[in-house]
Amino acid sequence: MSRFKLTIEYDGSGFVGWQRQDSGFGVQEAVETAVFKLSGEPAFVQGAGRTDSGVHALGQIAHVDIEKPFSAATVRDALNNHLRPYPVSILHVEDVSDDFHARYSAAGRAYLYRILNRRPPPVLDEGQVWWVATPLDAKVMHEAAQELVGHHDFTTFRASECQAKSPVKTVNKLDVSRVGDEIHVTCEARSFLHHQVRNFVGTLQIVGAGKWRARDVHDALMKKDRRAGGPTAPPEGLYLTRVTYDE
Amino acid sequence: MSRFKLTIEYDGSGFVGWQRQDSGFGVQEAVETAVFKLSGEPAFVQGAGRTDSGVHALGQIAHVDIEKPFSAATVRDALNNHLRPYPVSILHVEDVSDDFHARYSAAGRAYLYRILNRRPPPVLDEGQVWWVATPLDAKVMHEAAQELVGHHDFTTFRASECQAKSPVKTVNKLDVSRVGDEIHVTCEARSFLHHQVRNFVGTLQIVGAGKWRARDVHDALMKKDRRAGGPTAPPEGLYLTRVTYDE
Repeated sequence: MSRFKLTIEYDGSGFVGWQRQDSGFGVQEAVETAVFKLSGEPAFVQGAGRTDSGVHALGQIAHVDIEKPFSAATVRDALNNHLRPYPVSILHVEDVSDDFHARYSAAGRAYLYRILNRRPPPVLDEGQVWWVATPLDAKVMHEAAQELVGHHDFTTFRASECQAKSPVKTVNKLDVSRVGDEIHVTCEARSFLHHQVRNFVGTLQIVGAGKWRARDVHDALMKKDRRAGGPTAPPEGLYLTRVTYDE
Repeated sequence: MSRFKLTIEYDGSGFVGWQRQDSGFGVQEAVETAVFKLSGEPAFVQGAGRTDSGVHALGQIAHVDIEKPFSAATVRDALNNHLRPYPVSILHVEDVSDDFHARYSAAGRAYLYRILNRRPPPVLDEGQVWWVATPLDAKVMHEAAQELVGHHDFTTFRASECQAKSPVKTVNKLDVSRVGDEIHVTCEARSFLHHQVRNFVGTLQIVGAGKWRARDVHDALMKKDRRAGGPTAPPEGLYLTRVTYDE
């Protein structure tokens, strides 16, 4: 038996999310089906994070055990072949030890949120950005974002269906910058609550539009009440970009 | 009557190209239909360049005359509204003088060609890059590209159906660089022959794969014979990025 670490890119548009669901097709199921086509073995593919329906990944990490002997390069090429026509690509495959666990060994996760901030609608990036037509000030968004960095009770930014035991998390980084017509929000933490990044972005957007100030974000955080936060930004702007592991 | 200069972004995938054709729907026709819906006037939209079927634009320029009085901002917003659901967006609209001509006043055109150079297939950029799985050396591609810069007879890189009077053009810039998993080819000239950039890229790809050297590109150019050049790169990697005008 070999355990393989997979680095995966996907367009989340047509999926119910990473995880297999009764309600539809998950990226996980697409990869598991590809593993079965390669090895003939029923496979369980463990992802590092459960992305929501419509959320994309540039660097999701997963692991899978395969009994038959295959090289990492064969696994990569065969899975990519069997994954067509789904918008899922296996970027890297690495042979890892049996104690590597994509989810429990993860030391950090990084997300990017892309807002297309211009009056004309998106075209080439349709379905891959949140289109906000009203002008946003990335500088004040970045300043307000710093209120959310650190060790806090993030109940205000937690979806009601969140299954985490505690609402307390440590946000290591929350940066906002303008890149041409886009506003990029990057966020890093060991782990996240359900909808946490999208709730951050929905709140920061209010700041960028001039309706809230940094102080309002601070107050919302302190209230520990989801109703005190801004709306949930749509999934199509969100990308799981990186999962890191301790050496 | 007012003449408006339009800056247009489009995803060329579903179109027969910029120009209206008997064979299908052109971007030009989509914009003309939107103008008619705004003004009730049959309109002719003159583009700066005729992009091929499947070629994208980040900054196509066109002009259109409208009799009824509208502000530039109204034209932009109304055309974007009427253009839905087509993947065409009017980025800017400017009121220009009657002697401005999108095609004949153009002093320069710039293209970007994106090659996704990795073994796993494209996902988020599907239809927006040329996927080349074999490793390419961007440095030797750039060196070979310099053989094509300057004033030359480009018959070797001209499509047989090209309607230009002369095969002689001046290429001001042809740069190749690696950007992560992508190879970007940027090209600037006053004007181009039909398929010229795609034929450049198809030839430079042979160099990047190590099968040709800069000298072979030079020899192919000198032969003034399309059969001496490399293949035509596919349309989906090509973007008309900018059209410039003298002040």
